[in-house]
Amino acid sequence: MIDWVADYWASLAARRVTPDVRPGDVRSQLPPRPPESPVPLADILADLDRIILPALTHWQHPAFFGYFPASASGPSILGELLAAGLGVQGMLWATSPACTELEAHVLDWLRDLLGLPKRFASAGAGGGVIQDSASSGVLVAMVAARERATARRTNAGGVTASAAPLVAYASVDAHSSVDKAAGIAGIGRDAVRKVPVDGLGRMDLPALAAAVHADVAAGRRPFFAAATVGSTACGAIDPLPAIAEILAPHSAWLHVDAAWAGAAAICPELRGAVVAGAERADSWGFNPHKWLLVNFDCHALWVSDRQAVVSALSTKPEYLRNAASESGAVIDYADWQVPLGRRFRALKLWMTLRMLGAAALREHVRRHVAWAREFAALVAEDPRFELLLAPNLSLVCFALTAGDDATRELLDRLNATGRCLLTHAHVGGRYAIRMAIGGATTGRDDVLATWRLLASLA
Amino acid sequence: MIDWVADYWASLAARRVTPDVRPGDVRSQLPPRPPESPVPLADILADLDRIILPALTHWQHPAFFGYFPASASGPSILGELLAAGLGVQGMLWATSPACTELEAHVLDWLRDLLGLPKRFASAGAGGGVIQDSASSGVLVAMVAARERATARRTNAGGVTASAAPLVAYASVDAHSSVDKAAGIAGIGRDAVRKVPVDGLGRMDLPALAAAVHADVAAGRRPFFAAATVGSTACGAIDPLPAIAEILAPHSAWLHVDAAWAGAAAICPELRGAVVAGAERADSWGFNPHKWLLVNFDCHALWVSDRQAVVSALSTKPEYLRNAASESGAVIDYADWQVPLGRRFRALKLWMTLRMLGAAALREHVRRHVAWAREFAALVAEDPRFELLLAPNLSLVCFALTAGDDATRELLDRLNATGRCLLTHAHVGGRYAIRMAIGGATTGRDDVLATWRLLASLA
Repeated sequence: MIDWVADYWASLAARRVTPDVRPGDVRSQLPPRPPESPVPLADILADLDRIILPALTHWQHPAFFGYFPASASGPSILGELLAAGLGVQGMLWATSPACTELEAHVLDWLRDLLGLPKRFASAGAGGGVIQDSASSGVLVAMVAARERATARRTNAGGVTASAAPLVAYASVDAHSSVDKAAGIAGIGRDAVRKVPVDGLGRMDLPALAAAVHADVAAGRRPFFAAATVGSTACGAIDPLPAIAEILAPHSAWLHVDAAWAGAAAICPELRGAVVAGAERADSWGFNPHKWLLVNFDCHALWVSDRQAVVSALSTKPEYLRNAASESGAVIDYADWQVPLGRRFRALKLWMTLRMLGAAALREHVRRHVAWAREFAALVAEDPRFELLLAPNLSLVCFALTAGDDATRELLDRLNATGRCLLTHAHVGGRYAIRMAIGGATTGRDDVLATWRLLASLA
Repeated sequence: MIDWVADYWASLAARRVTPDVRPGDVRSQLPPRPPESPVPLADILADLDRIILPALTHWQHPAFFGYFPASASGPSILGELLAAGLGVQGMLWATSPACTELEAHVLDWLRDLLGLPKRFASAGAGGGVIQDSASSGVLVAMVAARERATARRTNAGGVTASAAPLVAYASVDAHSSVDKAAGIAGIGRDAVRKVPVDGLGRMDLPALAAAVHADVAAGRRPFFAAATVGSTACGAIDPLPAIAEILAPHSAWLHVDAAWAGAAAICPELRGAVVAGAERADSWGFNPHKWLLVNFDCHALWVSDRQAVVSALSTKPEYLRNAASESGAVIDYADWQVPLGRRFRALKLWMTLRMLGAAALREHVRRHVAWAREFAALVAEDPRFELLLAPNLSLVCFALTAGDDATRELLDRLNATGRCLLTHAHVGGRYAIRMAIGGATTGRDDVLATWRLLASLA
């Protein structure tokens, strides 16, 4: 199986990035009834080659430039294998102590590497935790915020126990997970004020201040704001220090969603804008599974006050009671997340950091940022194309000067070749093609070849 | 690494089940600063042996009888390796079609194997999905239920948009995740009516009917009930058909939490009580990661109306729009769960079912049930012990006749030997030792040796 995986990675460049399949093509090749008797591994590998691989989008392909990368690496794949092989449960410290302690420790390492403030260190009142995704991270933050803003009344009494209607703030370009979390948490998606963005995709401060003012005047309670560090559309970074200033009088919880861009803070020269204002955030999360070579799922979430999260999410039924938990001397990560059970995900982060080392991770990020600048320069030089804004880190947004329809058609034709995958967004009212560089196997040649293909199809 | 994992499994029987460590013991052995340069894999394996293994509770140990099992197997470990090695994202059908289609297909297989009703098949209006855990499954069900009960008003408008206060029902022995979900979903933990149980741990029907009647009389809206099939305390099975009957006039969503016991339905002779009434459930979930040899995380959740879930959880931001989703011909699993991203977890379920075959899985479950009966008979024959109730499937609850303090002390002394792990619960007001049989490596000898150890310590 290890060999099969290695061969798969070696074969990636020769494959189409996206499959040429219609709905139902895979299922039509699978037997309708489950297997009664054992099937040899060789048959399964043959089915993988014949049925599964031709119907995958290859996220580890060197010419995968869509969405944001979900990059894996040898060390992280081995870490996942190890976690599965050990098969332990880290819901409580007591259910497998090393699982909890390694996670707390590696999250402290990562905080250090990113230059995040000490308030997020586990030695103080805060600490880090691995969630499956940024969506779960923002939900956890929002539930903790809700509880804090209502003097701990809503967890028991529900949202109707809040003295005033709760309202949250995020930019129109914030990730859809903010809306989703507000829906799940019973606050309602309509209670998320979608603050306009400026020409560079950043939350508009006067608009935020006006929205907060209007809500407070109407008797509503600003309880939560999500600042985006690296928007999905164009990589924009919201002005966190100013947002914190506007919300400070209302004691709203400030969450930072740095899902993709957070990884760039590992490079001191890229760190400034990424972590600016983090010392005023209540929670700050990013995905090592996007740009730091740790395979999905690995969202790193730090909070400055871990007790706020625990008091919103803790359940301690009789069958989980134990001396270590009752001593208060340990972390029980089940109280920091939606699920009860948890895998030993710290292993893949630990193995990636150790087997690659921080210096190599910095070079990895730097290369992509340099290639994005190079790609953007090529776009800017071609009169048929328009760079919609300067690249943010390794994300380039561009369009054809001929207009949205032409740009959309170009993207469709480009992706139909199967030789690369790019996706789209709306940037400043325009239909934009996004070139998101960050894959584990991507080289400069892949970036340049994609530009040549674009230029030839344009 | 594969060899290291294989050696670890071979070493399990010779290890203590639980570690002898104090809080901080692991972290004190880890370097305070993150690694700047690469470390060889051999050094990492040495650290695993020296620091990590001595501080784990070995959930795959043959004498692990605590909580419920979280059993893994060779095929499922390989499936997890494969999912990590492919590194694809299955959030939408379009982002990797095989990832979605294999999941829908394997969940149909599993529905078939368990004898669950056709309303949960993907060919109709329902279908199955893999969640990380039963906790996430009940949260998803509750959010869908909330939306359905309020004419789709609460997702946008929040819980305060409900015309009447929402109330849910579960037994006092239901899993803590029902409370946690009600807290997260903004309904409030206090809105979960904890219905008393009868002498066998099953939801008391007159008490449920009275609670529903009182709530309706007070103008509240019964919107959700969680029936437990295999309670954590003693494996009790709530009388689902009668619960459905009581709730039918109120159109409440009926969720079945069969997290552990659901696996037993794979055996026709054990199926009856496990799936009774499932044809009236709106959602039904169990954990292949508990008793069916698929490593955590793998919670199988079926719903009878997938559109109810999608309309509560869907977000379709611009950057995720695609022709396949808009055609309505595909499943986009991101709309069935809290997170956006998702791993290719169907692979481990597919590989486990194929490499072992259904017949072997049935024998696996049958052996454990038979050993539980044998163990229970030994308990019943010893005058110092008392069987608190007949074993439910492979779970045996017992105590010392000398009383709770003596029982508690016996459990502490038993676990302190490191030779096995059993945990406790309250059963019928008594402190009970739980013997939960279901591990991947457990043999009849391990069960008998644990009895001999108990008898000698008593």
